[in-house]
Amino acid sequence: MTFKQSAHPLLLIPGSIEVADNVLEANGSPSMSHTHQPFIGIFQSALQNLRKLFKSTDHKAQAFVISGSGTLGWDIVASNLIKPKEDALVLSTGFFSDRFADALTTYGVNTDVIRADLGDYVSYEEIEKALGRKKYKIITITHVDTSTAVLSNVEEISKIVKKVSPETLIVVDGVCSVAVEDIEFDKWGIDYVLTASQKAIGVPPGLSISFISGRALDVALNRDVDTTYFASLKRWDIIMKAYESGKGAYFATPSVQLINALKVSLENILCKPLDERFKLHIENSDWFKGELEKLGLKLVSKKHAGCHALTAAYFPEGVTGANLFPLTSKRNVVFAGGVHKDIATKYFRVGHMGVSVVDRDDTKVALEAIKESLLELSVKS
Amino acid sequence: MTFKQSAHPLLLIPGSIEVADNVLEANGSPSMSHTHQPFIGIFQSALQNLRKLFKSTDHKAQAFVISGSGTLGWDIVASNLIKPKEDALVLSTGFFSDRFADALTTYGVNTDVIRADLGDYVSYEEIEKALGRKKYKIITITHVDTSTAVLSNVEEISKIVKKVSPETLIVVDGVCSVAVEDIEFDKWGIDYVLTASQKAIGVPPGLSISFISGRALDVALNRDVDTTYFASLKRWDIIMKAYESGKGAYFATPSVQLINALKVSLENILCKPLDERFKLHIENSDWFKGELEKLGLKLVSKKHAGCHALTAAYFPEGVTGANLFPLTSKRNVVFAGGVHKDIATKYFRVGHMGVSVVDRDDTKVALEAIKESLLELSVKS
Repeated sequence: MTFKQSAHPLLLIPGSIEVADNVLEANGSPSMSHTHQPFIGIFQSALQNLRKLFKSTDHKAQAFVISGSGTLGWDIVASNLIKPKEDALVLSTGFFSDRFADALTTYGVNTDVIRADLGDYVSYEEIEKALGRKKYKIITITHVDTSTAVLSNVEEISKIVKKVSPETLIVVDGVCSVAVEDIEFDKWGIDYVLTASQKAIGVPPGLSISFISGRALDVALNRDVDTTYFASLKRWDIIMKAYESGKGAYFATPSVQLINALKVSLENILCKPLDERFKLHIENSDWFKGELEKLGLKLVSKKHAGCHALTAAYFPEGVTGANLFPLTSKRNVVFAGGVHKDIATKYFRVGHMGVSVVDRDDTKVALEAIKESLLELSVKS
Repeated sequence: MTFKQSAHPLLLIPGSIEVADNVLEANGSPSMSHTHQPFIGIFQSALQNLRKLFKSTDHKAQAFVISGSGTLGWDIVASNLIKPKEDALVLSTGFFSDRFADALTTYGVNTDVIRADLGDYVSYEEIEKALGRKKYKIITITHVDTSTAVLSNVEEISKIVKKVSPETLIVVDGVCSVAVEDIEFDKWGIDYVLTASQKAIGVPPGLSISFISGRALDVALNRDVDTTYFASLKRWDIIMKAYESGKGAYFATPSVQLINALKVSLENILCKPLDERFKLHIENSDWFKGELEKLGLKLVSKKHAGCHALTAAYFPEGVTGANLFPLTSKRNVVFAGGVHKDIATKYFRVGHMGVSVVDRDDTKVALEAIKESLLELSVKS
């Protein structure tokens, strides 16, 4: 830990997460030409390492890194993998799944949503029934919905899709799951994972990162109607392939410093076995959720449906964001409020991803801040 | 000049440009919550200062800062200010103007292009005639086309539009002009300027920055058909207004560090009078272009049409990128090759914007590197 981390408030929201010093340093690196070395080598390394992060060895699959927010990933899906009037099945486990449906609808896609009970994942029976009733072009799974901390089982759902409707493209919103939860891209037969830089990948916000299967890429490249310019995978595919093979290319100026930061963060992540990383996140999350329950807090996600990237917990009686957060802030820890419309003011969220879990004991700091603040509140009242 | 700038190759391409140390430092700052202080104040400052950069006091106008490349600005125009089947008039002064037309066409816009002679701007007579023949929803002006170094006179063209077709929205691609060339947004009656962070604004790449008039914003907000989700000004307008008034809001996670860098760079820019900045760029550009001509190099932009952000010059007889650039690289200066399809291999481009002009003598370094390299080549041959 060097020059940067001194005395800034510990950010334990479910993204942006805390960023390692060498990643921040890469993000502060001087200007480089986007079509020359050393940047070509940097981008090449990032694209190659993304394959490892998704455990993919299929050479037809391709990583895409495009300047933008995680949200841009929804536009990419809506404007590359499916056309207006085609059908999409959205599995909704919260606010972010619903917004994915909004984005699809904006592009004229017919969107059916199966909504899980609050805190639960979508029932496999309902998925199977829906897939049997209609031929869907895509199914979308929000791997971890950041509004509820619900984890969907991508492997199980993929099995159902492969059985009932194998042509349906399996699209995973991995914004809050990639680099926390295991994703076996090839093995599970996933077609598209979208994510962003600022969650467990551990880079400042500003990159839309995705990984696409060969068959989904075929759909994008052979599309006859273009409904986007900037988010067109047709235009980006040759660029990504050029950089990954060690050549510069140009469609739009890439975010040079953020990609440099991505390269460094992927190296940080991949220097240890991925499965150990996932295990650490599971153990840490289980421990933290258990500790909050010992304090009497009720979790938003049901026991069998909890993710490992964050914890969403209801405030205890008499506690609100307005009285709790000033006390946790005083202890120099920043948490997030709720975003699920049904319960927005009734719960809060604690992120536990990346360096906070792998290299530091930030979740313990979070627990102490919550304990002390609740105690202070109870003494006051 | 502190920790960062040591010994990196001097980047004098027409974007990304060299970035000031305090801006790099801001870009390397630790994570902050995007919906809390201090980030709210940072974003507020950036949005307020963008008004000053565009010399606008019209409270109906609004700045937008969205994660993405400069290219995203074309999608914003194509999906917010004009609808499929409506008419756009594109003034083309090179490769980037033509690509703006491509982007509009992708969204189903009927696009008429008036193409200037290579190195020249579009004739005012032709513009007037075209505007008289058809009612265009928008006219696009590429203020500086980075492929040719041609400057279009936005003030004069705006006068023609106001005279012949006052309802036509005036859209300026200011990617390579904002913070180099004067833009009097209110006074000239401009409706939309799109730009990016990595040119004269002096921030690493990754932000699409734009400024919109009240009447153009009305068009975007009252649009009945949505053709984009991420690039929708309807969705972003409330977010920008919230941050500018000192409140957090959420549509997609903003690029926190890049916006912090933008805030610092705008402060750097605005601590001196803007007109002095523009004058410095003009004097420096005139001097550099003159020096290249003294060396016998022919410029791509005609004398009356030259911009002040970059110089595009033909290689002298016997010189190519392949033999010149290794020699300039040896002198630790990076230039850019050509991108205009008719002459791509025949010329090169030197950027002279921002700190390189205002705070340093980088253009002199560029000239020396070119002189010495040409001499070395002539001795060799």
